[in-house]
Amino acid sequence: MAVGEYPFPKMHPVKGLKLTSVSAGIKRVGRKDVVLFSLAEGSNVAGVFTQNAFCAAPVTVCKEHLSKAPIRFLVINSGNANACTGEQGIADAKATCAEIAKLSGVKSEQILPFSTGVIGEPLPLHKIIPVLPEALNAANENGWEDAGTGIMTTDTRAKGFSQQIVYQGQTITVNGIAKGAGMIKPNMATMLGYIATDAKISQAVLQQLSKEAANKSFNRITIDGDTSTNDSCILIATGQVSLPEVTQASGELYEKIREVIIAAHVHLAKAIVSDGEGATKFVTVAVKGGADNNECLAVGYAVAHSPLIKTALFASDPNWGRIVAAIGYAGVKNLDVNKIRVHLDEVLIVENGGRAKTYTEEQGQVVMKKADIAINIDLGRGVAAETIWTTDLSYEYVKINADYRS
Amino acid sequence: MAVGEYPFPKMHPVKGLKLTSVSAGIKRVGRKDVVLFSLAEGSNVAGVFTQNAFCAAPVTVCKEHLSKAPIRFLVINSGNANACTGEQGIADAKATCAEIAKLSGVKSEQILPFSTGVIGEPLPLHKIIPVLPEALNAANENGWEDAGTGIMTTDTRAKGFSQQIVYQGQTITVNGIAKGAGMIKPNMATMLGYIATDAKISQAVLQQLSKEAANKSFNRITIDGDTSTNDSCILIATGQVSLPEVTQASGELYEKIREVIIAAHVHLAKAIVSDGEGATKFVTVAVKGGADNNECLAVGYAVAHSPLIKTALFASDPNWGRIVAAIGYAGVKNLDVNKIRVHLDEVLIVENGGRAKTYTEEQGQVVMKKADIAINIDLGRGVAAETIWTTDLSYEYVKINADYRS
Repeated sequence: MAVGEYPFPKMHPVKGLKLTSVSAGIKRVGRKDVVLFSLAEGSNVAGVFTQNAFCAAPVTVCKEHLSKAPIRFLVINSGNANACTGEQGIADAKATCAEIAKLSGVKSEQILPFSTGVIGEPLPLHKIIPVLPEALNAANENGWEDAGTGIMTTDTRAKGFSQQIVYQGQTITVNGIAKGAGMIKPNMATMLGYIATDAKISQAVLQQLSKEAANKSFNRITIDGDTSTNDSCILIATGQVSLPEVTQASGELYEKIREVIIAAHVHLAKAIVSDGEGATKFVTVAVKGGADNNECLAVGYAVAHSPLIKTALFASDPNWGRIVAAIGYAGVKNLDVNKIRVHLDEVLIVENGGRAKTYTEEQGQVVMKKADIAINIDLGRGVAAETIWTTDLSYEYVKINADYRS
Repeated sequence: MAVGEYPFPKMHPVKGLKLTSVSAGIKRVGRKDVVLFSLAEGSNVAGVFTQNAFCAAPVTVCKEHLSKAPIRFLVINSGNANACTGEQGIADAKATCAEIAKLSGVKSEQILPFSTGVIGEPLPLHKIIPVLPEALNAANENGWEDAGTGIMTTDTRAKGFSQQIVYQGQTITVNGIAKGAGMIKPNMATMLGYIATDAKISQAVLQQLSKEAANKSFNRITIDGDTSTNDSCILIATGQVSLPEVTQASGELYEKIREVIIAAHVHLAKAIVSDGEGATKFVTVAVKGGADNNECLAVGYAVAHSPLIKTALFASDPNWGRIVAAIGYAGVKNLDVNKIRVHLDEVLIVENGGRAKTYTEEQGQVVMKKADIAINIDLGRGVAAETIWTTDLSYEYVKINADYRS
C-alpha cells in the first residue's frame, strides 16, 4: 500500500557519476539487490548517519573511510542490513570494499559500503563478491532508476528526484534516490538516501549542506518511530560542471544550489513517507507558536507517533480528542490549553480548551477523507515552528511487519 | 481480544464501603454505566491523576474537592470522558456532585466525580441526574463486580483484586477495581483505578502510599503510548477496622498493608495490560544494569512502544534485531553495545553487540509462541532496574481504534 501515484521521474545524468544495479540473489533469486555508484576523480562526498547506538557495520566503515581518502565508489546491498553482526560484520563490509578496490585499482578506503534489510544475519559475501565485476562494467550515466529500484526492501516503488539549474550558460544537475518504508524515524537520515550534483562544492560546504538538508527533511519524517541501525544519507558533488567551486561566498549560485539540494532531500523524504508501510494517508503535522523548536518537535512527534491518532487517520475519523490528548501529554511545561488552536487543513477544530464553536463533524470528515491531510497546531506561546511528515496506521502495516522475515 | 483467562475474583466486603452500578443509557440503553461509591464517615481518600495538560473536567474537580472536605461519595460514569469540554464540562461535573449532595445531605465538595469514554462530547447530565437516587439506594457491600463492570469502556472484562490481612485478631481487607484498555500510557495512573481498605490510615500516609503504589504499577504500563486525559487512581481507607491508625511508625502492620496495597495496584495494572486493546501477548520488559532509573525507563519504553517489536510479538517472531535497534535509539548516552545482554525469558539472544553464539531461532520461537513473554535487558552499566508491562500490536488493535466512535 502507498499513498497516491508516484511515477519515477525522468532523471538527467549527473556528469561524472555512473551507476547500476545487479542481481546477487541475497533474498530472492533474480532480484536486483546490489547497487554500485562510480564517481569521477575529484568528487567530494559528505554524509550523515544514524545515531542508533547499535549502528550497523557499514555505517562504522563509511564514517572511517570518509575521513581517510577521496571516495570513488559506493556499494549498496539490499536484503541484509549487516547490523548487529559484530566484528564479522565489519570484516565483511571491508571485504566488499577490498574487492572493488582490487577490481578498479583504487584504495579500499575510497569505497563506501551500505546495507539495508534484515538485522542480525551475516552478510552473504559469497553472493555479493561474484557480481561486483558485472556491476563495475555495467555502471552508466542513466542507471538512476535501476539503482533506485535496487536499494528497495519493503518499498513499493523507487523514489527519485532530478532538477537542473542553469547558471552563466552552464547546466548543473541535482539528482537523488532514496529508500525506506519501515523502521523510519530517522535521527540523522532515512534508511538510505543518495543525492548527487555535478557542481563543484568544497568538502566543508558539502558536509554543512548535507547536515542542513537532512535536518529539514529526513530528520522530520516518522512512520513508526523506530530509528534504524543503518540510516545513511549521502551527498555527492562530482565537480564536473565548468563553474568555480561553490562556497557560501558564491552568492546567487550558492543559494540556488542550496535550495535545490534541500528540495531534493525534502522530496525524497516525503516520497518515503507516502510509501510508508501500509500507508493510506500522507500526514503533515505542522506545529507553530512554540516557545522553542524542541517543544514544537515534542508536540509534533507526540501527534505523529500516537497509534490512536494514526488509526483514526486510517479510519478517516476526525477524532480531535485524540489529537488534543497527544498535545497534552507531549511534555510541554506550563502549556496553556486555552491558547491552543488546531486546524485540520483549514478547518478550525480546537480552541479555548475544547471543540471550536464553529466546528462541525461534517467539516472534519471532508478533510479526513483526503489522502493528504495537514494537522496544523498553534501552541500560542512564541514564534518557533517545526513540520513533521508521517502516515496513518493500517491493518496493512501490522501485516507487513508481522510477516516480514517469513 | 485479551490475553489468557481472567475470572473476576471473589471480593470480600470492605467495611464502611458500599457501591453499585446503574444504567443511565449514556452510550447504550440498558448498559450499566454509572457507578457510585458510598464511604463511611471518617474515611480518608487519596489519589493521583493524569499529567496530561488537557486534563478532563472531573480531574480538575476531583483535585479541588480532595483539598476541601472529607470525601463521602465517588460517582463515575463510563461512555463519556467529559474531557476538552471547557467551562461547561466543569459545571457538569459539579452539577453531578451537587445532585448527590442534595440527595444525601453531605456537601458538594465531599463528592469526587470521574468520567471515562469519548473525549470532547458534552456530558449527558439529563441521563445521569435521574439515575442517582437509584444508585444511592442500591449501594451495598457486595457491589464490587457490578462496579468493576460499570466502569468499563473498550475493556473486555472487569478487573478486580481482593486480599485480607489478619493482624492481632482483626481482619483488614484490601480491594480494588480498575478499567482501561486503550489510550494507556499512564503518567500518574491508569484510566481509572479504585483501591480501598477498611484499615485506618492517616491522610498523609495514604497519599504517600497512593503515589508509591501508582509509580510501581499504573505508571509502568503502556499499551499504545497514549496518556489519557482522565487517568485517576484513588486509594480509600474507611478506617472501620478496630486497630490503631496506621503510620510509618506502625512497623509490621504498616509493612503488611503497604505490601498488599502495592500488590493490588500491580495486579490491576497488569490486568489492564492483559486486557489491552487487541492484545494477544502479555509482555514484561525488564531493564536492569542501568546507570540510573531514567535510562532503564527510556530503554524499556523504547522497546515497549516500538510498533516493529509489537508486531513481531503479535507474529510470535523472535526478531531480536528490532529489540536491539530500539535499545540503540532509546537515547542512552555512551551506551556500550558490547556490554548489553538480552534474554527472551531465560534464552540469551544478544551479547557482544550481536546475536548470542549459543542462540538458535528455535529457542526464540519457543518463547515467542507463549502468551506471556519477558524481554530481559541488562545494560551492563550499573545497578538501576525498572520493569514495564505492555502488549503486542495486532490487527484487532487497529480495528478497535479505527472503529471506535462509530
